[in-house]
Amino acid sequence: MAAAAAARLLRLAPRRLQVKTSPLAALSFPLPRTPPLAAASGRRQSFCAAAQASAHAPAAAAAAATGPAGEAVGEFRKRLRVADVKGGEDEGAAWVGKELAVRGWVRTCRAQRTVTFVEVNDGSCLSNMQCVLTPDTEGYDQIDSVTTGASVLVEGVVASSQGGKQKVELKVSKITVIGKSDPTSFPIQKKRASREFLRTVAHLRPRTNTFGAVTRVRNALAYATHKFFQDNGFVWVSSPIITASDCEGAGEQFYVTTLLSNSAEGGSLLKDIPATKDGRVDWSQDFFCKPAFLTVSGQLNGETYASALSDIYTFGPTFRAENSNTARHLAEFWMIEPELAFADLNDDMACATAYLQYVVKYILENCKEDMDFFNTWVEKGIIDRLNDVVEKKFVHLSYTDAVELLLGSKKKFEFPVEWGLDLQSEHERYITEVAFGGRPVIIRDYPKEIKAFYMRQNDDGKTVAAMDLLVPRVGELIGGSQREERLDHLEARLDEQNLNKESYWWYLDLRRYGSVPHAGFGLGFERLVQFATGIDNIRDAIPFPRVPGSAEF
Amino acid sequence: MAAAAAARLLRLAPRRLQVKTSPLAALSFPLPRTPPLAAASGRRQSFCAAAQASAHAPAAAAAAATGPAGEAVGEFRKRLRVADVKGGEDEGAAWVGKELAVRGWVRTCRAQRTVTFVEVNDGSCLSNMQCVLTPDTEGYDQIDSVTTGASVLVEGVVASSQGGKQKVELKVSKITVIGKSDPTSFPIQKKRASREFLRTVAHLRPRTNTFGAVTRVRNALAYATHKFFQDNGFVWVSSPIITASDCEGAGEQFYVTTLLSNSAEGGSLLKDIPATKDGRVDWSQDFFCKPAFLTVSGQLNGETYASALSDIYTFGPTFRAENSNTARHLAEFWMIEPELAFADLNDDMACATAYLQYVVKYILENCKEDMDFFNTWVEKGIIDRLNDVVEKKFVHLSYTDAVELLLGSKKKFEFPVEWGLDLQSEHERYITEVAFGGRPVIIRDYPKEIKAFYMRQNDDGKTVAAMDLLVPRVGELIGGSQREERLDHLEARLDEQNLNKESYWWYLDLRRYGSVPHAGFGLGFERLVQFATGIDNIRDAIPFPRVPGSAEF
Repeated sequence: MAAAAAARLLRLAPRRLQVKTSPLAALSFPLPRTPPLAAASGRRQSFCAAAQASAHAPAAAAAAATGPAGEAVGEFRKRLRVADVKGGEDEGAAWVGKELAVRGWVRTCRAQRTVTFVEVNDGSCLSNMQCVLTPDTEGYDQIDSVTTGASVLVEGVVASSQGGKQKVELKVSKITVIGKSDPTSFPIQKKRASREFLRTVAHLRPRTNTFGAVTRVRNALAYATHKFFQDNGFVWVSSPIITASDCEGAGEQFYVTTLLSNSAEGGSLLKDIPATKDGRVDWSQDFFCKPAFLTVSGQLNGETYASALSDIYTFGPTFRAENSNTARHLAEFWMIEPELAFADLNDDMACATAYLQYVVKYILENCKEDMDFFNTWVEKGIIDRLNDVVEKKFVHLSYTDAVELLLGSKKKFEFPVEWGLDLQSEHERYITEVAFGGRPVIIRDYPKEIKAFYMRQNDDGKTVAAMDLLVPRVGELIGGSQREERLDHLEARLDEQNLNKESYWWYLDLRRYGSVPHAGFGLGFERLVQFATGIDNIRDAIPFPRVPGSAEF
Repeated sequence: MAAAAAARLLRLAPRRLQVKTSPLAALSFPLPRTPPLAAASGRRQSFCAAAQASAHAPAAAAAAATGPAGEAVGEFRKRLRVADVKGGEDEGAAWVGKELAVRGWVRTCRAQRTVTFVEVNDGSCLSNMQCVLTPDTEGYDQIDSVTTGASVLVEGVVASSQGGKQKVELKVSKITVIGKSDPTSFPIQKKRASREFLRTVAHLRPRTNTFGAVTRVRNALAYATHKFFQDNGFVWVSSPIITASDCEGAGEQFYVTTLLSNSAEGGSLLKDIPATKDGRVDWSQDFFCKPAFLTVSGQLNGETYASALSDIYTFGPTFRAENSNTARHLAEFWMIEPELAFADLNDDMACATAYLQYVVKYILENCKEDMDFFNTWVEKGIIDRLNDVVEKKFVHLSYTDAVELLLGSKKKFEFPVEWGLDLQSEHERYITEVAFGGRPVIIRDYPKEIKAFYMRQNDDGKTVAAMDLLVPRVGELIGGSQREERLDHLEARLDEQNLNKESYWWYLDLRRYGSVPHAGFGLGFERLVQFATGIDNIRDAIPFPRVPGSAEF
């Protein structure tokens, strides 16, 4: 029976149907007594003879060890996943009567009088495979080890399910416990654990429904991001993580150093840190021979590549050494920063809109089960809210109009509203959530005093071509601008802000040699995950959050 | 004429053919006098009235500012790119007779008696658009500014080219200089600059043929990586960059700290660094309240997610504070680390093989022009070498057999060959380049003493289920292993290597709760770029290399 079930293990070859591993190898996982090298030993022995000859006749050795060319192009064995069975429109109905094997982790085990129901999840989708065991099932003597968190191999026949919760279930002919899970100490039991607690077991939380779903949607958002930009001719550029350029202001930056690494037993001694005669840290002895930091943005580097390849995007980690213990801040987060050459602020806004609509549409279409889960358990109505983003036109208004709107409202705000002051989160959320009933809003043309030096000055002399894209719940999701491409204007702005022009030499070079109008935006990826899943706390939108006082795991 | 040309500007709507921006807006780039806000002002005025009403009637305001729902889903204006014209099979022949506008940077300008040839490149492909100007061309009075590095807008009609180097050229009716480039100071002139020099102008080097091509192939390799894993059901997981876990050994790690950031005028004073009474750095006052480092690998974190989602991969930056000034080492590099649950070393090797063949095939098919360039100018024969990777079976041999092979060879090596010693680069290259004539080789089952604690022990008691994939020129490209899933074996290995079990509590938890056989590998992305382009020095395989003494730009 076991052999028959093993023979039915699906092998999905993505390109050509050629299977290289033997069915026996597939079975070897739950049976570690089968030496994993057995399958290879034949090849190894035959190679040995070849190896003896090889020193003198390399070509012959190569031929002997090869076999026919081209046999193994691009395939490898794929496990059958629960999503392969239950992920289709029919929720698995077409599989009824078929034999298969599922590997995964036990979510729950419910013993009834004559049968035992075991829910097995393999992370490929939210759905478990409901497995039905009877005392006749082979391996039933191990039933005491079939506890929450244990890993199992279940083999059997797919049947229509009597229960209303799923279309199909697995009548198990054999169960094998692969790895046990001590029921008294396993931290994630059946009862719902708080998200705060789950952060303390971040290595196990992806085994819960919520974090499994967040992980899959996060993955889909990342892939949709690449697809969108690649399909539109953008080139992915990796901006540097460590930077010794002074461009970004060191206020909220982490230092990267090896000066502390000659740690004595018990911790680094201060007296071991290289110092100059006047008692300062001697940066010339550091790894990069000067102070180095973790990047806060790849934008300036991205502009250099946009000034050569036209349209580029970065997608990588960025950092803030900001002591903010809030549900909106991380010390380490991923950022997406496209940069468009030969583009103005209107193009930038259109690109940001198209991007956001594309990725939201992508998860609504490709993560239906997970999105239904969020809609039911995390934020009721999130699917409608996201559909609005895809289908409705975004509101555009100027900063000046936004200030007028806020002043004209009867609402009392905590922070003052006045032309020249930055908009606070409460203002942004009022505009998108109340004034425009939940539609995304793009505010543009901010006062130059509250925006960065590189943003292009408008002809009014007061504002810059900057834009913020606001969404309900999250507030600012995207911030962008047309960049100042005129050398004289840019230098004047650096002077105004008392920034050191010499450290920007390469950035200014872009304006000296073939400067072009260009624009771009930045999007905090974890904010997007929050927006798309309804997850409240940004620490739950990234696998291992880094915040003040904690960089565990 | 200009208006006619503008009307022919291509608008490529990726999903639906709805164009939102006016042709006027498209023309505004080279004419900055046209206020970029003009197009939006109509909308803004109509919104103003709505905004007045909005405080009391949000829904009405929303309706007034919207227009019909769903108009703008997912599109934005796209520039016509040179690749759109010349990238097809016919190299642009179908465009003959059509009017178009091209924006890009001048590579060369050659004046002949009656005509001037200007080569314009926009980074979308290696090919320039050859532009033919005569004294009758509108804007010809600016010809002195049409110098290498300048940015231009050229408008005209596509014609068959008389020269043999290209099928089509552009008869220019109008040229507009967007941004000048001082010919005496522009660092990258027509003559071939050395790669060493180009590293000092890393912000401009993507404007050269070589670095444009490297950037596009690097991008294609990254996208192919995502496609391969996504198509095979793997989930992208972002492993943390900053880590305070002691798991990795601090020898070659960068410290991440804010203790140095209270920099006094002129540099951080040593006496300002928080210290304990016995003169040690007081980590409790650091950002994470303990020493924190830049990650050297995301593997251990990746294993936690594979133990929940089955198949995952990471793709992110990793770091080594290694003082190696070689052509093979970077302090900051990108790494790809898949992890497969319910998999053994054979599956791991099959996956690594399929992955490598997939991405190499992808660039051979999708980057033909760039690969021809590398084949001609960088490494003759690289296309054949890469075709071999796609088409030929990889050689498999054990470490033991590899040692025998090396001992049996007549070659004198610099480093000793002996069972129990690690293989050096010279050994690896001999095996793949000489013994097997350029085919990739996978060596498996290394002595446990020279491999990491987490690798699964083979039944022989002497070796572990580790594998290295070797390729010509680069040597080791991929290193992987089956992981030790047995708690007792893993704890014994930690003890043997004097590692602190307590700091691995979460890693050991994976073996306590539902442990499964699993395996994975790591691939340094820049090594892959070197392998795929023939570029000698790894510093030329990443936009902004970080090496000892240098983190510029």
